[in-house]
Amino acid sequence: MRKNYMFTPGPTMVPPDVLLAEAAPLIHHRTPQFSGILREVGEALKELFGAAGDVYIVTGSGTASMEAAIANTCSAGDKAICVRGGKFGERWSELASAYRCEVVDVDTEWGRSFSAEQAQELLELHPDAAVLCVTHSETSTGALTDVEAIASLTRNSDTLLVVDAITSIGVHRVEMDRWGADVVVAGSQKGCMVPPGLSFIAASPRAWEAVEASTSPRYYLDMRAMKKNWSKYQTPYTGPVSLVRALHEALAMMREEGLENLYERHRRLAEASRAAMQAIGLVLVAEHPANGVTAVWGPEGVDTGKLTRKMRDEYGVTIAGGQGHLKGKIFRIGHMGYVSEDDLLICISSIERALRDLGYDFEFGAALSTAHRVLFGE
Amino acid sequence: MRKNYMFTPGPTMVPPDVLLAEAAPLIHHRTPQFSGILREVGEALKELFGAAGDVYIVTGSGTASMEAAIANTCSAGDKAICVRGGKFGERWSELASAYRCEVVDVDTEWGRSFSAEQAQELLELHPDAAVLCVTHSETSTGALTDVEAIASLTRNSDTLLVVDAITSIGVHRVEMDRWGADVVVAGSQKGCMVPPGLSFIAASPRAWEAVEASTSPRYYLDMRAMKKNWSKYQTPYTGPVSLVRALHEALAMMREEGLENLYERHRRLAEASRAAMQAIGLVLVAEHPANGVTAVWGPEGVDTGKLTRKMRDEYGVTIAGGQGHLKGKIFRIGHMGYVSEDDLLICISSIERALRDLGYDFEFGAALSTAHRVLFGE
Repeated sequence: MRKNYMFTPGPTMVPPDVLLAEAAPLIHHRTPQFSGILREVGEALKELFGAAGDVYIVTGSGTASMEAAIANTCSAGDKAICVRGGKFGERWSELASAYRCEVVDVDTEWGRSFSAEQAQELLELHPDAAVLCVTHSETSTGALTDVEAIASLTRNSDTLLVVDAITSIGVHRVEMDRWGADVVVAGSQKGCMVPPGLSFIAASPRAWEAVEASTSPRYYLDMRAMKKNWSKYQTPYTGPVSLVRALHEALAMMREEGLENLYERHRRLAEASRAAMQAIGLVLVAEHPANGVTAVWGPEGVDTGKLTRKMRDEYGVTIAGGQGHLKGKIFRIGHMGYVSEDDLLICISSIERALRDLGYDFEFGAALSTAHRVLFGE
Repeated sequence: MRKNYMFTPGPTMVPPDVLLAEAAPLIHHRTPQFSGILREVGEALKELFGAAGDVYIVTGSGTASMEAAIANTCSAGDKAICVRGGKFGERWSELASAYRCEVVDVDTEWGRSFSAEQAQELLELHPDAAVLCVTHSETSTGALTDVEAIASLTRNSDTLLVVDAITSIGVHRVEMDRWGADVVVAGSQKGCMVPPGLSFIAASPRAWEAVEASTSPRYYLDMRAMKKNWSKYQTPYTGPVSLVRALHEALAMMREEGLENLYERHRRLAEASRAAMQAIGLVLVAEHPANGVTAVWGPEGVDTGKLTRKMRDEYGVTIAGGQGHLKGKIFRIGHMGYVSEDDLLICISSIERALRDLGYDFEFGAALSTAHRVLFGE
């Protein structure tokens, strides 16, 4: 018998109850019933974002909401500081270029986190920057950025802080209002335990001024249309009713677990994953690792592409390899969303088996016993 | 006991097997398994579009693909002729304006179809137009446009024909290549019997030249990225795996019915709906009605908003009211996708009941018996 598991950094596993909610018979999107669901979903998203203002749902992947962030707050010629410390940080730069911003690229070594000190310097050097774009939890490296510290600087400047929280929402506490972040985007297919297809975006009051002022061409992603429709709990275009029903169920499950417990579970999963990999002599990619994804350097001589294919094809366990120039060199364990502490044992065991088969010399069982001890030892 | 039925012009009812396919456990989007599904889905979409070239899947509602059509083929200052004969025709104009085209609005009375003669005149008047944007089947009025005749003109001109086939794909035969249409867009939630969240776009070889030349800002909707990824049967961003699995199942059902039978069923459903409404003294909105939606003028003194709410809330049968300036004045019966000939009897019966309750004086039963005769009489 074979069961399949996904320890991927998105899409992630989806609870059966969420899948069944998605499979409910269709309802029409212009009905009080659907508006009622949107209202409840909206309240739960505000809690996850730590936002008093509304969080809008975009039918589209996380990149659609990232583009909405740029198109709505920047006009051609605006200066955009983009922190590129991984594949998704690079996306900010590509988006800002597509919208003809004057892009200031900040290249951080992949795995290093952009710091408040660097932000301070950049804001002094570029006081005219319209936006500073950062990645809260960089999926390609597992690195966490201290958004709170950076926001404490931007909120006292004329630069808006634009945050990709796609891999952090539902994993790390996000406090958009208290921190003073200006635009936050997230997606459905990570900590929110919903299939891919939805993304989310929220803006601070001063970001809304930029939205009104932006001259960038936009229509489907125009936040003014989102705002107008959301006031009646509607979507500007045909609402993604099935995915929203899935989200409704998933958010109810998250609320039932309790946000504090949810964040603590992710912290424990991350701690156990890191300790397990280090116990067999492997090295983490991230200097300041996030709690949703653990990125690990493959052992000398082991192609991590082979590792992940072997795990997927022979053991039914899907983890991720490296992206960009880290392809073949690292592997990434996703432990976001619908991953229990018991599940993680399966993931760690299968990594050990695949590493052994690929000729890596280590004490077989050391990773699993370490994870077991970290998770359940006291 | 109450059952719920949707005779709506989108989203439409989704077959249980399609819902269950959507509810399958998640798979990762960068896997041979998902690429295999995309390949099969792509082949079936090409058949529906009548296109030898690839049809791309966009995670987003139909409007996202409409925006992709404009953003990829037009640059600021390009002349765009937009036929506005309904809410969705108006959307072409709004999109072209958002991208700073020089928009030539062609206002056709709602319900009238834009003709090849009009197209001929416009192409002579504006030989420099980059695009002519039309709506194959206008959802807001039920009017059908003869795209084949218009394409026979544009293909001999320098103007690209951009077609919204959102409400016609899977309902009417579309022959993109044979007709010579340049860009065709469609959506999942109409004739394709899939929940909302996916849309589709295809371009002719000469439209691809425009895609390469366009200077409009775009990223998420950039067709160059779609093309590059599709060559490996991948999506540029996280693929909407659940909705694609639903689509895979729906396309298999459509193929099993056979495309000729599918189009013939829609023709019969439309013919029966029109005859039924006319049998009780009502008047159709569209001069040349399409086979997916039948739009009907409400009787004098009857608010069609009340009619549709009564049907939905009291009988569990959802049809649509009017949009824009036709709100309250018309109602629209969607008979697209997962609607059988038997189902239509329920729809017609409930319209009769609601009209009677709202005080309209007619021969009760005449609509139903007419539909019954048209569908099953010989």
